Amino acid sequence: MRKLLVSVALTMLCGMASAQFAGILPGQQAEKLPEGFKPASTNTFLANYPAVNAATRQAMFKVVAPTAQKVQVDLANKKYDMTKDDKGVWTCTSDPQVVGFHYYAILIDGVAVMDRNTDAFFGSNWESSGIEIPEGTEGNYYRFNKDIPHGQVRSIYYWSDINGLERHINVYVPAGYDENSSTRYPVLYLVHGWGEDENGWSNQGLMANIMDGLIAEGKAVPMIIVMPSGDIKTNSDVRTASGDVTKIFANNLIPYIDKTFRTKTDKKNRAMAGLSRGGMQTCMTVFNNMDKFGWMGTFSGFFMRDGDSIENMYNGVFKDAAAFNKQMNLLFISTGTEERTPKAAVEALKKHGIKNVVYHESQGTAHEWLTWRRALNEFAPLIFK
Amino acid sequence: MRKLLVSVALTMLCGMASAQFAGILPGQQAEKLPEGFKPASTNTFLANYPAVNAATRQAMFKVVAPTAQKVQVDLANKKYDMTKDDKGVWTCTSDPQVVGFHYYAILIDGVAVMDRNTDAFFGSNWESSGIEIPEGTEGNYYRFNKDIPHGQVRSIYYWSDINGLERHINVYVPAGYDENSSTRYPVLYLVHGWGEDENGWSNQGLMANIMDGLIAEGKAVPMIIVMPSGDIKTNSDVRTASGDVTKIFANNLIPYIDKTFRTKTDKKNRAMAGLSRGGMQTCMTVFNNMDKFGWMGTFSGFFMRDGDSIENMYNGVFKDAAAFNKQMNLLFISTGTEERTPKAAVEALKKHGIKNVVYHESQGTAHEWLTWRRALNEFAPLIFK
Repeated sequence: MRKLLVSVALTMLCGMASAQFAGILPGQQAEKLPEGFKPASTNTFLANYPAVNAATRQAMFKVVAPTAQKVQVDLANKKYDMTKDDKGVWTCTSDPQVVGFHYYAILIDGVAVMDRNTDAFFGSNWESSGIEIPEGTEGNYYRFNKDIPHGQVRSIYYWSDINGLERHINVYVPAGYDENSSTRYPVLYLVHGWGEDENGWSNQGLMANIMDGLIAEGKAVPMIIVMPSGDIKTNSDVRTASGDVTKIFANNLIPYIDKTFRTKTDKKNRAMAGLSRGGMQTCMTVFNNMDKFGWMGTFSGFFMRDGDSIENMYNGVFKDAAAFNKQMNLLFISTGTEERTPKAAVEALKKHGIKNVVYHESQGTAHEWLTWRRALNEFAPLIFK
Repeated sequence: MRKLLVSVALTMLCGMASAQFAGILPGQQAEKLPEGFKPASTNTFLANYPAVNAATRQAMFKVVAPTAQKVQVDLANKKYDMTKDDKGVWTCTSDPQVVGFHYYAILIDGVAVMDRNTDAFFGSNWESSGIEIPEGTEGNYYRFNKDIPHGQVRSIYYWSDINGLERHINVYVPAGYDENSSTRYPVLYLVHGWGEDENGWSNQGLMANIMDGLIAEGKAVPMIIVMPSGDIKTNSDVRTASGDVTKIFANNLIPYIDKTFRTKTDKKNRAMAGLSRGGMQTCMTVFNNMDKFGWMGTFSGFFMRDGDSIENMYNGVFKDAAAFNKQMNLLFISTGTEERTPKAAVEALKKHGIKNVVYHESQGTAHEWLTWRRALNEFAPLIFK
């Protein structure tokens, strides 16, 4: 790769060279795609494939692998065998997909690798390929809207003794944050799922588009959103326990944010939410720090384990319903209808006397990003009001 | 992958599952690495390999590929054959490397793919694996320093009619930008090389660490640094010419930045620099907009082509040396000693009467990121003074 970079650099004054994989360069003609198919928005800027069909919601994949014996695409719980042509180019077309974002992998002779035609999306603890399936109006709320003001996502490193390293967070500030330099804002802490990282809500979730839209329409109040990692990358001399992440959130991150941004610091102006394992981390963090958070949401992340009862789960936080009701303005519980739902737990909570529970179902979606984009879009308008 | 995510999510309340590739989880014992080797800082948080040896500057790689016929590592212009053990785990150890950042690829039966154990670094127009080789004190200026104030890198999307899409830029603001809310700052536009993107200077270049250090020590003045893409990703209905990128920089980006940030807007407070092809783009942009820029730098990106003379190159911008000298405070030209150097061009410029040329050589480095980290570290203290 570096060889390619070097050789290109030495001829760069004459223009640009083409990558190994099929693609287009600015000014070049695009490779002719099958009727109805366009390059996915998640592709690198040169790649025509994967291509997506907005009408059929199918994806087509292409991999150049002349000497491989078997190449497959692994997408949404199904492995597709690819077919090789006489030039060693493998292709396949997927079944119709749920719109929104999906991780996928290419299997080359059994080894799961990233498709080099897409941007990288950290999921399942590796930089994975991803594909955005477009469709009609579903996604308007998560698409970039050029006609409204936009917030900024700030990439920040701060020192963490627990990590023995600098720790990376992303912080969304709403449009107008710089201009309104005396305004203070409420803060939502928003956590990704297992195997993802602090970039997930931006890259896979398109949270900035969602929040820009909600705030511009007056549906949500302008707020700061802090996106930390739910994992602990350490330097190799340091070992930590995974439970330390809730300590980082409560004791390390909140003071740093309140020092660094113009926040409102009382509990009625602080919320936390997370998806999947991030929902569990939200419960662990909030229920152990009820004096710090006034609002919470779990997206595909709230379940009763076998043997749990409302009385004893989470160290008995729900036992005294009246006390819980007084402390928590909102317990938002969301799920996709095509995954294991927490409906029974929600009903048990309500029966036990827990008020301020809002239950949201994303119709027709599973444990996937469309569920969570929809959940954020429902949750954010409910908080800080 | 999604299957893995789903299955994990359903058991997530019980803890975390392990990824397919070798790795460690918080609280677990690290796999025993060979004496002197540690996980590279560029690894994902679970990965022990690639491992690096700070003393020998070697890297060890590991890939699990039981059914592959041949697996290689492609690093710094050399392909290393990996050796397979009886469990299908392939390993190899590299020659000593130059310290700093290197792209590399894994070749699985001839297909170049990303090593899933590292973070993703966009280079050669794909999301590539990368490895940071540590060594003694060389890197102190580009390492995170917990004892100084830190700037922020802001991720911003703005609408571009030329792209027919939102366009992504990263903007570094120095420590104190929010607190000193009436201070205005000079601006450096800083461009990546061929095949890289607007994240390159942050991820591969560690520019924030370099600038935080220079500013904290008083060597460089506090400045805003704008990192745009040197390529044009368009929606698939739009076609552009690659030359349009200089028009975007001059006519589209500068007004947007001056509107959005507290900038000083006169030419003596605006600089541009770029590496490799970004050096060429710097020349194209600055030489066509001499009224807008007072300082410029090219890192491994300034060459005379065959047939060029000082008089005629870049449309004759150097022809009237006195005029050029009056307009340009600094023409910084940097190179690694182990690549094709622009030494002859620099000498010809000086002989022709071009003043304010500063020539910098990075000793023992080629067309690689250590050259460019060093170049930024030399260049930034020279501007806006």
